[in-house]
Amino acid sequence: MHFSVRSFYIISIMEEELIGNCLVAQSGGPTAVINASVAGVVSEALNHPCIEEVYGGMNGVLGILKEEIMDLAEESQQNIRGLRYTPASALGTCRFKLKKDQEYERILEVFEAHNIRYFFYCGGNDSQDTADKISKLAQSKNYALRVIGVPKTIDNDLVTTDHCPGYGSVVKYVSTIVRETALDHEAMGQHDLVSIVEVMGRNAGWIAAGTTLAKSKENPDDAPHLIYLPELPFSKEKFLDDVQRVLKKNRYCLVVVGEGLIDKDGNYVANSTDSQDAFGHQQLGGIGDFLANYIESNLAVKARSSKLGTGQRAATHCSSKTDNDEAFMAGQAAVRAAVEGETDKMVILVRAEGDTYECETGLAHLSEIANGVKEIPSDWIAEDGVSMTAKFIKYCQPLIQGEVEVPYENGLPAYVRLSKRRIRKVLDPYNFE
Amino acid sequence: MHFSVRSFYIISIMEEELIGNCLVAQSGGPTAVINASVAGVVSEALNHPCIEEVYGGMNGVLGILKEEIMDLAEESQQNIRGLRYTPASALGTCRFKLKKDQEYERILEVFEAHNIRYFFYCGGNDSQDTADKISKLAQSKNYALRVIGVPKTIDNDLVTTDHCPGYGSVVKYVSTIVRETALDHEAMGQHDLVSIVEVMGRNAGWIAAGTTLAKSKENPDDAPHLIYLPELPFSKEKFLDDVQRVLKKNRYCLVVVGEGLIDKDGNYVANSTDSQDAFGHQQLGGIGDFLANYIESNLAVKARSSKLGTGQRAATHCSSKTDNDEAFMAGQAAVRAAVEGETDKMVILVRAEGDTYECETGLAHLSEIANGVKEIPSDWIAEDGVSMTAKFIKYCQPLIQGEVEVPYENGLPAYVRLSKRRIRKVLDPYNFE
Repeated sequence: MHFSVRSFYIISIMEEELIGNCLVAQSGGPTAVINASVAGVVSEALNHPCIEEVYGGMNGVLGILKEEIMDLAEESQQNIRGLRYTPASALGTCRFKLKKDQEYERILEVFEAHNIRYFFYCGGNDSQDTADKISKLAQSKNYALRVIGVPKTIDNDLVTTDHCPGYGSVVKYVSTIVRETALDHEAMGQHDLVSIVEVMGRNAGWIAAGTTLAKSKENPDDAPHLIYLPELPFSKEKFLDDVQRVLKKNRYCLVVVGEGLIDKDGNYVANSTDSQDAFGHQQLGGIGDFLANYIESNLAVKARSSKLGTGQRAATHCSSKTDNDEAFMAGQAAVRAAVEGETDKMVILVRAEGDTYECETGLAHLSEIANGVKEIPSDWIAEDGVSMTAKFIKYCQPLIQGEVEVPYENGLPAYVRLSKRRIRKVLDPYNFE
Repeated sequence: MHFSVRSFYIISIMEEELIGNCLVAQSGGPTAVINASVAGVVSEALNHPCIEEVYGGMNGVLGILKEEIMDLAEESQQNIRGLRYTPASALGTCRFKLKKDQEYERILEVFEAHNIRYFFYCGGNDSQDTADKISKLAQSKNYALRVIGVPKTIDNDLVTTDHCPGYGSVVKYVSTIVRETALDHEAMGQHDLVSIVEVMGRNAGWIAAGTTLAKSKENPDDAPHLIYLPELPFSKEKFLDDVQRVLKKNRYCLVVVGEGLIDKDGNYVANSTDSQDAFGHQQLGGIGDFLANYIESNLAVKARSSKLGTGQRAATHCSSKTDNDEAFMAGQAAVRAAVEGETDKMVILVRAEGDTYECETGLAHLSEIANGVKEIPSDWIAEDGVSMTAKFIKYCQPLIQGEVEVPYENGLPAYVRLSKRRIRKVLDPYNFE
């Protein structure tokens, strides 16, 4: 009791102590809800007088290096509200990785020039690693800066957090497509069709695994019939056996495959020499086409493939309300944590124990996030290697619940573009070498 | 005045005259709204006492040949209601083409055995041709039968009707995906990315053309930047020029391509020898991958492709309310026309003149539909060959308006499966030869 009163006292002092501007930026591949996190940051920041200006960094650290900073307080309320239901990264994003000390120092120089005291970085492992290093450099230089990461990734591979904002929405969309595609195949009434749906997930099968939710509870023979995860070494022989087993029971076989499928030697299956064209050019066809070709070359059946591509991570029109709410909440929580004196942490999602799904936010050290990759627990994958266990379904099902009310205009989703009014640069241009 | 009273009298007599059962069936590729048409038929049929039983044919004419007929009156009200928002063909469909006289005679034999006096066939050109022949055979044999076609095709290529149920929904979905994908590319801030979205449309570019709606009115530089239609012979040289022109203005170039792109000699571009693998197997990669590979082999830029595949025609989760309403209305209109004594006709959609979109149903002779293919008028394609004119936009825009309220359960669309209770067979099995 004494302790909690005391900590409250310390927090109040710290909130008073650090007055300055905040900057939020986005990094890595976009998702359907990463803008909801930015909307959460902006909405919450306006509640705290210690935060004076609310800035956005253009294209992650790349824009910060160039001192390209936009004034988010100048955006209309409609824009900030619309941001919550707009896919992709409205501030711009990058895959640029800071390498040199000089680059980290430049970031701090820009922060100092604009009195940025709060830095919120929405991203995955690499981004949180960057945030960690910026935070530590600031500490070593006695520059008062609070750095809080906001988790983001469709890949769902960040450690310490129960799941990642962005994941539930991509699963909801691809599962919807699998369910709809399956109904189409069922209706066609034709025999011996193998249909392959290629989904994202270069190193982890979280997305492919999630499509198991497309099965209705009543019908275990529903699609997807086979799910191939990059976690398990792919065997062509087993693949043919699996498909034939399904085709004995069902008229068609719907296969979901994660793009980064590897063989037992760790090589990407779709990048084998078989997939080079006559001139030796590497074919871009992807694993879906590769498997469809392989089926047609080896079995007397028809094969088709779909590749949902970039659109799947931007499918806000079919995103999860749970995911959207949590992404927004994670943005708000980041601001509250920083204002309360926390730094060098990432917001995490913490699932309550018990049968009813409840989720609240917590904090973890950035360094923990940066160095880990969350894998699918082995007992969440069934022994056949091509389906998921009840444990996985229990984990994943709550994440896709609820539909967002995307605003429509003229028959299509009315997504916002920020006006991106830049603040005046005060430093010399940065020399990229 | 005298005439109109008289015709009313005749109709009443005919309505009294033809008492019997009705059968509705689906044919060809499914759409997001073909079940809405069946729902329209069933709902309307229940209003007319001259229609006694409401049957559904399994898998189009194929099931009728086999006397596989389901009793739609046995389906629950929820199922018929849910049908309106369920993709694919709930009765089952087929691509089977009746060829022999004997097959047509068998159809009539089945109709006679079950006192089927009303036949509603939802489908495209081939299906309406089949319906026409069945109708004419019935007339020649003095078997009283009223045959009304219900238009259906995502390809939008039926003549006499302003547009086809199914088209507005596929355009709404693929345009949504193009808009979302474009926001993702914009956010990535990378230069020189060519992104190719392959959509359906083997012989006509109606679907690819429709994605022009993804552009916002305010921004002519919005994606899609280039649209390639099967109507225009494809030139690789022009393609490279087009892409380079776009990349001078924009960081990325989003290309939409109809799957059936042909070259000046009428050959499918994606089936050229370049796309065979090392063993001479025809590659299934499709035109999207082919173009992506071609770009990477010829320009120093990155190329990616998506292939939306079967799912695009089943995407009821993102379907057009206008399209759904019209599909339902077409089903209702078919029943009303038949009851009023019409036969050997297809329901068509008639757009009112003037600036406000209004649409009502009309009728056209089945023989007209069977022999025509509606092409995109040449002045709806811009002179650059890769964009659409204002005339096309004016035509297409109204068709994607409004969103349907798909019921959700447990985070995914709750689509219905009919119980498909069969009626008892009374004939000998049909011998397929």
